[in-house]
Parts: sequence; C-alpha cells; structure tokens
Amino acid sequence: MTIRVGLIGAGVMGSDHARILSTAVSGVELSAVSDPEAARMARIVETFGPARMFTDPVDLIRDGGVDAVLIASPDQTHGALALACLDVGKPVLCEKPLAASVEECVRVIGKEQAMGKRLVTVGYMRRFDPGYVEMKRRLDGGELGAALVMHCIHRNVAAPSFMTAPMLITNSAVHEIDISRFVLGREVRRVSVVTPRRTRLSNMQDPQIVLLEMNDGVVVDAEIFVNAQYGYDVRAELVCEKGSISLTPPHDVTVAHSGSESFAFPDDWRPRFALAYRSELQAWVGAIGSGVPAGASAWDGYVATAVANAGLKSLASGEPTEVKLEARPACYS
Amino acid sequence: MTIRVGLIGAGVMGSDHARILSTAVSGVELSAVSDPEAARMARIVETFGPARMFTDPVDLIRDGGVDAVLIASPDQTHGALALACLDVGKPVLCEKPLAASVEECVRVIGKEQAMGKRLVTVGYMRRFDPGYVEMKRRLDGGELGAALVMHCIHRNVAAPSFMTAPMLITNSAVHEIDISRFVLGREVRRVSVVTPRRTRLSNMQDPQIVLLEMNDGVVVDAEIFVNAQYGYDVRAELVCEKGSISLTPPHDVTVAHSGSESFAFPDDWRPRFALAYRSELQAWVGAIGSGVPAGASAWDGYVATAVANAGLKSLASGEPTEVKLEARPACYS
Amino acid sequence: MTIRVGLIGAGVMGSDHARILSTAVSGVELSAVSDPEAARMARIVETFGPARMFTDPVDLIRDGGVDAVLIASPDQTHGALALACLDVGKPVLCEKPLAASVEECVRVIGKEQAMGKRLVTVGYMRRFDPGYVEMKRRLDGGELGAALVMHCIHRNVAAPSFMTAPMLITNSAVHEIDISRFVLGREVRRVSVVTPRRTRLSNMQDPQIVLLEMNDGVVVDAEIFVNAQYGYDVRAELVCEKGSISLTPPHDVTVAHSGSESFAFPDDWRPRFALAYRSELQAWVGAIGSGVPAGASAWDGYVATAVANAGLKSLASGEPTEVKLEARPACYS
Amino acid sequence: MTIRVGLIGAGVMGSDHARILSTAVSGVELSAVSDPEAARMARIVETFGPARMFTDPVDLIRDGGVDAVLIASPDQTHGALALACLDVGKPVLCEKPLAASVEECVRVIGKEQAMGKRLVTVGYMRRFDPGYVEMKRRLDGGELGAALVMHCIHRNVAAPSFMTAPMLITNSAVHEIDISRFVLGREVRRVSVVTPRRTRLSNMQDPQIVLLEMNDGVVVDAEIFVNAQYGYDVRAELVCEKGSISLTPPHDVTVAHSGSESFAFPDDWRPRFALAYRSELQAWVGAIGSGVPAGASAWDGYVATAVANAGLKSLASGEPTEVKLEARPACYS
Repeated sequence: MTIRVGLIGAGVMGSDHARILSTAVSGVELSAVSDPEAARMARIVETFGPARMFTDPVDLIRDGGVDAVLIASPDQTHGALALACLDVGKPVLCEKPLAASVEECVRVIGKEQAMGKRLVTVGYMRRFDPGYVEMKRRLDGGELGAALVMHCIHRNVAAPSFMTAPMLITNSAVHEIDISRFVLGREVRRVSVVTPRRTRLSNMQDPQIVLLEMNDGVVVDAEIFVNAQYGYDVRAELVCEKGSISLTPPHDVTVAHSGSESFAFPDDWRPRFALAYRSELQAWVGAIGSGVPAGASAWDGYVATAVANAGLKSLASGEPTEVKLEARPACYS
Repeated sequence: MTIRVGLIGAGVMGSDHARILSTAVSGVELSAVSDPEAARMARIVETFGPARMFTDPVDLIRDGGVDAVLIASPDQTHGALALACLDVGKPVLCEKPLAASVEECVRVIGKEQAMGKRLVTVGYMRRFDPGYVEMKRRLDGGELGAALVMHCIHRNVAAPSFMTAPMLITNSAVHEIDISRFVLGREVRRVSVVTPRRTRLSNMQDPQIVLLEMNDGVVVDAEIFVNAQYGYDVRAELVCEKGSISLTPPHDVTVAHSGSESFAFPDDWRPRFALAYRSELQAWVGAIGSGVPAGASAWDGYVATAVANAGLKSLASGEPTEVKLEARPACYS
Repeated sequence: MTIRVGLIGAGVMGSDHARILSTAVSGVELSAVSDPEAARMARIVETFGPARMFTDPVDLIRDGGVDAVLIASPDQTHGALALACLDVGKPVLCEKPLAASVEECVRVIGKEQAMGKRLVTVGYMRRFDPGYVEMKRRLDGGELGAALVMHCIHRNVAAPSFMTAPMLITNSAVHEIDISRFVLGREVRRVSVVTPRRTRLSNMQDPQIVLLEMNDGVVVDAEIFVNAQYGYDVRAELVCEKGSISLTPPHDVTVAHSGSESFAFPDDWRPRFALAYRSELQAWVGAIGSGVPAGASAWDGYVATAVANAGLKSLASGEPTEVKLEARPACYS
Repeated sequence: MTIRVGLIGAGVMGSDHARILSTAVSGVELSAVSDPEAARMARIVETFGPARMFTDPVDLIRDGGVDAVLIASPDQTHGALALACLDVGKPVLCEKPLAASVEECVRVIGKEQAMGKRLVTVGYMRRFDPGYVEMKRRLDGGELGAALVMHCIHRNVAAPSFMTAPMLITNSAVHEIDISRFVLGREVRRVSVVTPRRTRLSNMQDPQIVLLEMNDGVVVDAEIFVNAQYGYDVRAELVCEKGSISLTPPHDVTVAHSGSESFAFPDDWRPRFALAYRSELQAWVGAIGSGVPAGASAWDGYVATAVANAGLKSLASGEPTEVKLEARPACYS
C-alpha cells in the first residue's frame, strides 16, 4: 500500500521534504501540495512529479486523495493545521514546533487524548540521527552506568536577519531540549540561561548557554551559538558513571592540503541531518502502515515548547526557572 | 511509476537487497523472488510482503509482472542470468562479479553492444559510498593536482571456510580494482601480487598486497587481509601532487571507557556499506526510469574480472602480469 | 652555571620532580632534599645521586649549598616555606597551591611587593603544556576574534579516600581557574558551582560544574569529575567569534583490536602533563639564570586560591559568588 | 658528573643539537665546537654559551676538554670522523648516515669489533619517538600476535634543489629502513623500488615506493614523497595477526575555522621529531655515564646503508635486489 502524502508548505523545509519523499522513501507518494505562493508549488510539482495543488491547506487536509499530511509551513500555522488534521483523523508529521504557544500545544494533546489515538508526530528529526540513537542505545545498555552530565553544542554559521535572542532558545535550543529528553528519558525540571560575552558579529545575545536540570538531577549544558562563522556544528557528549559517549562530527573524508589535515563542516542542518530526515520520513510512513507511532509525539512537542518557554523567562530574568508541565496523558506513556 | 523488481537469490545478499528495496527505496516494489530453496523464498515474502515465487529464475526473468531484475544468486550463475535478462530486454542489477569467467563477461558486453543499449549494472556498490564519491569529486575538482599513488586496505574479520588464496583476489581485491578505476578514471595495465608473511590464523596466503599500475603510471597498493580479526575495515588514501585525501572510517560515536577512547568497526561489509547499497539501488531504480545508466556497467564488470585474472596469474607466478583488455565498445564511453 | 636545587618533600610529587630535575633538565643539580621521613629522602638520594639530607626544611632553605628551592611538601606547609625562602632571598618553585589560605597567599605577595622582587613561582604546570600554549598563541594571534566561551573538562580515574566535595574545587578546579586566566588573560569576577546528579561510585558531590565569569564576560564552564573511572582526561575548547580551538587528547598511537580502534588515556596527571612538568622546571631554571620570571607568579597563586574560595562559597550556598581581589601590585603586571 | 661534548658541524642540524644540549639535556655541557666557517661557530658560542672553537675537527676530537663527540658535519665526513673518535676511545654520536659508503661503515664496525667496545651511536632519532617506541612495545607485548605487514609514509614539503632520485632512498627511505628493523627486530633480505607516476612539481622520480622484505617474510611498504607540498608527514601502521597499530600524527590542538576542522603539520623533521631528538641526546649522555649503549649502533648504521644500497640497485634495474650483509659481530647482539 502506498501512502499518499499531502505537503503543506513549499519553502526550504517543504521542498526538502518533497525531495526526500519523492526520491528516497519507500511506500509513499507525494500526492498534493499547498502553499500561498503558486510558483513555489509549481516548482515542486515540476521537480518531483504530479501532485495536486491547493491554495488552502485545509482543503488539502480534507481531500480524499490525501492519506497523511506533512506540515512544513511557517511556525505560527502549525498548531491550527495539526488540529485540522486531527479533525479528519489523518496522521500528520508536523515540523517543529508543534505550535507557537504552549496553550495551542495543550489543545493538540487534549484533542489526541480525547480521541484516544495518537496521530501527530513532531519533526524532531535528531531522534533519527544515528549518533544520538547510538548514544541512547549505549546508555540504555547499562554498561556505562547512569547518566550524570550531558554537554551539547549547537552552532550555526550565521543567523538569518530576523533572528532574535529569544529565538536562540525557541528555534535552536529547542532541539537540545528534545534530544536531551529523548536520550536521557527524563523530563526537565529547571532551566537557566547563562549569557556569555557576545560576539561582535551579531546584534543580539549570542552565544547563550542553556542549563537544563533533569528530574533525576542530570545536568545538560547546551551552548547555542548561531553566528559561529566556521560551520554548522552540533555536538554532544554524555558523561556517565563509568564512561562517556560523544557524537563524532560526521565526515566522509579528510584532506591534507596547505599545511593541515582537515574535514569539512556541513553548511547547515540539512546535510548534517540528511540521514535523520530520511529515516524520520521513512519511519513515519512505516508507522502509518503499522499503527505503531514512531518519532516525537505531540506530548514531546508540547514539552519542548514548555521548556523553551521556561528558558525565555530565565533569559529575561537572569534566574533559574522551574518548568511546570501538565500531567502526562496515558496515551503518551 | 513504480518499478516492479524480481529478485533472484534469497541468501544473505538477496535478503538484504529485499529488505532495502522494500523499506528504503522510492519508486519500486519487490514483485517476485526466485530461489532453489522454497523456505528462503517464503521467508522473504513473509517479511517484506507479497511477491510471487519462482523456482526457475528464467521464468521470473520472463514474467510480465517483472520490470527489472536483481541478481543475487551464486557467482557462477550470474553471467547466464544476465544474458537471459538481455534476451528479454529487461534492466538488470547483477551482484558482482558480472560472470565467473572473462569469456562470459565478454559475451555480456558483446550482447549489449549488439543491442546498442546498456541494460546491465554490476553491483560494485562502493561507487555509491559517500567517501569514495567525495574522493573522486575532490580529485576531479583539480585543486590537489594529479593523482600519483593510492593506498587501499581491505580487511575482513575472518574468511569463510571455503575461501582460498586466489579468492582474496577474485572476491576481495576485485572491489579495490573497481573502485580504483572509478576514482582514478583510468585502466589498469599491470598487476603484481606480493605475498607477505602469512597469519597463523588461516591456512592460506593471507594477507596479500596487490599492486596495480594504472595506464597513466599511478600505482595502487591494496592490502587484502581477510582474517584480520579485529573488524571489517576498508580504507583508502589518494595521494596527489598537492595533497592527499583519505576515507574516514565511518562511526557515529566514540566511547571513553576502561582506559581508552574508541570507535567500533562494523562486523562486515553490509553495515559498512549500508548507505552505498541503498544509494546503489535507488540510483538503479532512478536510472531505469530516466534511461540514463548509473553505477558500474557491464564493461566495468568485465574489466574487474579481467584484471583480477591477471592478479591470479601474478599470485601463481610471483611475477608482474600485464592486463590485456578487449577494445572498449563505444556504448561504454 | 649550574643551579643547585634543594627539594622539600619526597612524596609522589617530590620524587617526580627529583627524577625530572636529575635526568631531563639542563643547568641544574639536585643538591639537597628534605622530608620528615628519612627513608623517603634516602630513596631519592639513592636513585638520583648525591644530595644532602635535611630533616628541617628551613635548614635546607638557609643552606649555602642551595641556590633555589622546590617545595613539594603537603599543601598546608607551602605558605610558610615560601615565606622562609623569601627571607633568605632565594628563588622558589612552590607546588600549587601557593598557600592553604587566602590570607597566607596575601602575606607572600605582600612580602614580594615589599622586596620589589619576584622570587616565587607557583607550580601551575599546565601553563607549559603545548596544547594550552598553542591555544593561547592562537587566541592572541587574533585570527579567531575574541574569546566568548571556554569549555573545560577535568576527569580523574578515582579520587583518593581523603577527597571531599570542596576539594574538587580547591584541588582540581583550581587548575581550570589558573589555566583560564592564563589563556584568556582576564580575571574571574564571579563563580557558580552547579551540582549535577552524583555518581554512585563516590560518597560526595561528584561531578561538579564550575562556571567562571571573566571580567570581560567570557564564560568558562568546567566539569570536574574525580571518579570518572575510564581514565585521566583533561580537555578544553576555546570558542571564539570566528572559530574554535580544542586540545587534542595526547596519544602517540591508536590500536585496532577486538572490534574497535582506540587510544589510551593516561592514568593520572603525571604522564598527561609530563612535557609540561619538564618544561616548567626547565623554564624555572632558565628564569633563575636570566632573572626574567616564567610561569605562574605568587599573584597568580593568590588569585587561584581566592577564586577557589569563592567557589567553595557557591558550592555551600548554591548561589553565584563574587570574587573580591586585592589590588594587583605593580610588580606583577 | 657533567659530560663535556664537542660538536662537529655548525649547520642546521649542528645548531639544533647545540640548542637542545644547552637548554634541555641533563648532565652535559657543550664545551667545544668545530666548523670550517668561523661565523657559524661564533653564532653557536654566542647563543649557547662559552665553548672553545676548533677549525680542525680532529683537534676537537683529540682535545682533553672533550669527553664525547657529536658529529653533525656533511655526510661524506662522517666515517672518517667517527674513526678518529674511535682512535682516541671517545664516545661519539654520529648523525645518520654512519658513513657515505658501505665500505667505510664496515671499517667502523671492524674497528669497534677489534676494540671489543661500542663507542659509536648513529643518530637514527626515530628510535626515541614515543610513537615508534609504543608501537614496538605493543608488538613485543604479544597481544596483537606476529607482525605481517608494515605501511610507512614519509613525505616532505619540498626537496632541496640538490636532491636526486637516488637520494630519496639514501636520505629519506633510510629512516624507514632503520625504524622497520627497530620495530620488527628483523633484518631486510630483499628490496624493491616501485616508481609511480611522477609529480610534475619535481624533475626527478618522486614519489617512490620502497618494498622491504624482512627475513621472516614481513613486508614493509614505504612511500617516499619528498615534494608532497602539504606538510611534513611521517606515518606508519603495523599490521599484526590480531590487530593493527598506527602512529597518530602529532598535534596539540585542532582548530575549527573557515568551514573545516584541522590540525597543522610540522614544517619539517625537526619539530616533528623534537621529542625524539631530545630523548636521543639525553639517552646518549646517560649511556656514556652508565656504559650501557642506547640508540642505533654502528652495526645498525652499517645495515641501513647496506640496505639503502640494495635499494639503489633496485631503483636502477627495476628488479628486486637481495641484501647481503656481513656476519654480525658478537658485540652488536
């Protein structure tokens, strides 16, 4: 059975998802696309083959030729579109964040809880990165003892002009929040944001260090630096009682030239997490077929946003901030 | 359009191809399988979904529900099956070697030449490994100047009991032969096999060093060691006039434990070249759709076997052996 | 001219210094040794050649056959012995810490200031480690822009039984304090100690994360983990505006064996910093000859102890603690 | 007791030895220097302190104020000067080669044999490089089984203008010959030189691959490339029955900058082998004191030259060449 996917959003992420779905995922076809800009839709149809075009994303969601929906439209639209998918009972993969506000996230999990059924997956693709998966596998294997500290690094080459200091938390650190929860299997109970000396190559507070205290005491320190210039670089080290696991910066070759031996950093998150994006989509398609959810749930999407919000408060106040979460509905355990 | 693939051979490699085709490749479905052992066929159908079963592979090849054929049966059957595919004009991906003898390889390329059409792809999957692809890209980019020397290492944990000293060349070194031709874009004109001290953990001449002299003078030295014990390890360094490019041994994490920091080797070629196998199959499916061949051609399959044969002579004689090739038909240039 | 050195303390560090002085440093001889235990003194004399033995270290300090003094006795004796050296105007290399209390450190710098002459060097040997030296050189070179964040890791295999939670700061973190000041060229203005989940392999708060805020806003985060089990591991990464510099864990070989490729960690700080210790002693001897001080000064020793004390307050209170320093005497600028 | 060393040769290597002896070695002083150029001698005396100057190196050798001699003059003078040292019974460290001809080497070992005493050390400093030492230690430890193959790489940035193709063997490969013998503990029985495509950045046959067959069948393949442009790079991998040991290219830091992470190569052999040179000199001084020889003996110097000569024949003829050695005198076992 081939899953017919409708894609909402034909921008950078949407186009990338269209490419992966059309050229690298089994059991799926891109059957519909929606975007306010007709030209962007047309480009996707030209490049990746026949798909019907919808101006209104809700029409796409309701269309009988669409089995499942992939939301890659602007962040503030995510929550309403995810809810619209739930209205018609269709599986949906929503790019992070699940919704722009905690309240909207709560509505989504409330609706899933009411339906007694999980249809929403949130696109925290790092959960499919082989490095993090292996890190979690080794931790769960037990040989290294309990986790104690996790060091994370998240560096972009240069932030887009619309980026602001709070967005380091809501757009970037949110990945560190989700992946820490995934690897450690624990919730965050407190967030502190430390503000080091700023780079002069930006007008905002960049870098920031986000400290997460998990509910078993593990401390995660995540450096977020979105104007790091030298490359896109995401690292993590998990320090356990008897040993430590570190992600290896992915690279296929080293080159000895002009006095040094080097490997190249990717330009941004798409090449860095290319394997993760493919696996995420493949797993989503597989989960639709099998009915067994894979990837980050709506609950995970809600928590990431809630923890990021606590981070925003800490950034503003300079003080550690407690994270307060809803009770976890049974369907997410 | 979905390509309906018939798989011949339900052993280790066949099952792996079935898995990849069914779970990780776009635009394809496994529609038929053939194997002398019914139980092995049945296992594939159970695991990867409905596919018709054929006792006789030629029936599968001729079947109207099969658009393209994947040959993963024992080596000595490859040539005849590939020819049978050409008889009915169907695209075929044949696991290496193309055929067990040079003569049979010549028949395949002769037939393609006669048909004026390339339908055969040979499964030298390394051509899709990101490391070798990047190595070739950097060489072709020109920044490092001309290639001069290429160092290759090919180590297996332990050879199966049927392995013999000549098979180090025909089964293992043949990959080094193909990938050297791919990266360097040159033919081999002479082969010498050097026989170092043997490991006591085998009864045959293991390791061997295979020296290839390319037709522009580049020398490739390839250590083949099929009882290396410690892990499956394939490496390559391309030394150029102004710099050098080396494959990085793939690994996602390093672990600090018990006094050392380490990364793990894969157990065998399947995890090591998992990305390459997937990309090879995806490229093959794409090439069927587009009509533009991708991957190693029948010519490449013939040359690899011819060069390996020269290697066998050198192993027997202890002397360098010239490689004599047929003229290259126009359809392969 | 050969400098005649008197060594105070014949324990682990003292013996190591005796060995280095006697076998690897130019322009020096070990002429005297003092230790309360006669047997330990005798062992040094037997192993490293003729040196006079003193029961009372002050007799050694005052002896006419001693040109310079190396203090490697227990921490609480350092301050008084350093002052005794100043009394007789002899150069002294005092193992860290300079003194057990801030007050005693202040007495030493006060005395040097009064003498208008720097005779005291404190054994913060990392200032001679090639990695930190190169890190500083690259930062000072300017190509990477200003420093913003420094990540430090300090892990021991297992703490001795007398170790307590505060000693993670005074004995271990004190090295991170000194080397951060050295690399960054800045003073610390605030210290916070974060207490993650504890390892069950110790009875105290281990690990700890020490956050230093430098007076230009640079933030140093130093993980101190003295029961890390897997090896002695000291790392640092300096994140700058345009790039980042990391120490490479020193190792001479990698070994591929039993499924993985690995390098070994040193057992403790002596092999890890063997080059640094030799260079420190050589530089000290050179500085005595030239009159130009090298290495950490009494001021540096005082500051390290003062900052560590602020860290102790933060560990006890759970709050960030301001560092208050004496005015820096002119002789230390 | 301080060993008074007389240095012959005040060029690049001589000056470097003077520096190391004067600033980094225990138990020694530079008491005399000899060079045909007075200005070069004067520079050494100015920089490294009082030493008497001799125009005639034999005067230096015979001088009563010289306990031991370090020969760093041009290659063709080595043999005669070493013999002159033996004439007066003084220990001598002779930079490699021991002598310019096999015959002269034989005279030196004959003389030592007649004296029944080893006074000559040859400056194959790699024997003191921590990486090779560790490689040998691990091999001798037995855990990895017997050695089978050794891969060596020897690359210089650019050859001096006087360099010729045969000098790749006599000046560069000679180091690989010596270190292979040292690590493997075996003699070479056959040498073949393979000549790959030449770099266009030189007028001679560069690179070359030198194959050594040891007398237990181990094969060493050594790539010599003296115009490699990108940096000074010496590597080695020792492949054993159960595992493999590789030298790590020494570097203290990595730098992430401008799209890649890199470490720097040294410019030439002096920084690369700085530790080895210091240890070699320290060991030589220690050996003079203890009477127990350390480092490469005159026999080792003779063999390296004899094997290199066989390499020259192979380079000229294109054929493998047998190595014929004198019987090994008892004093060298």
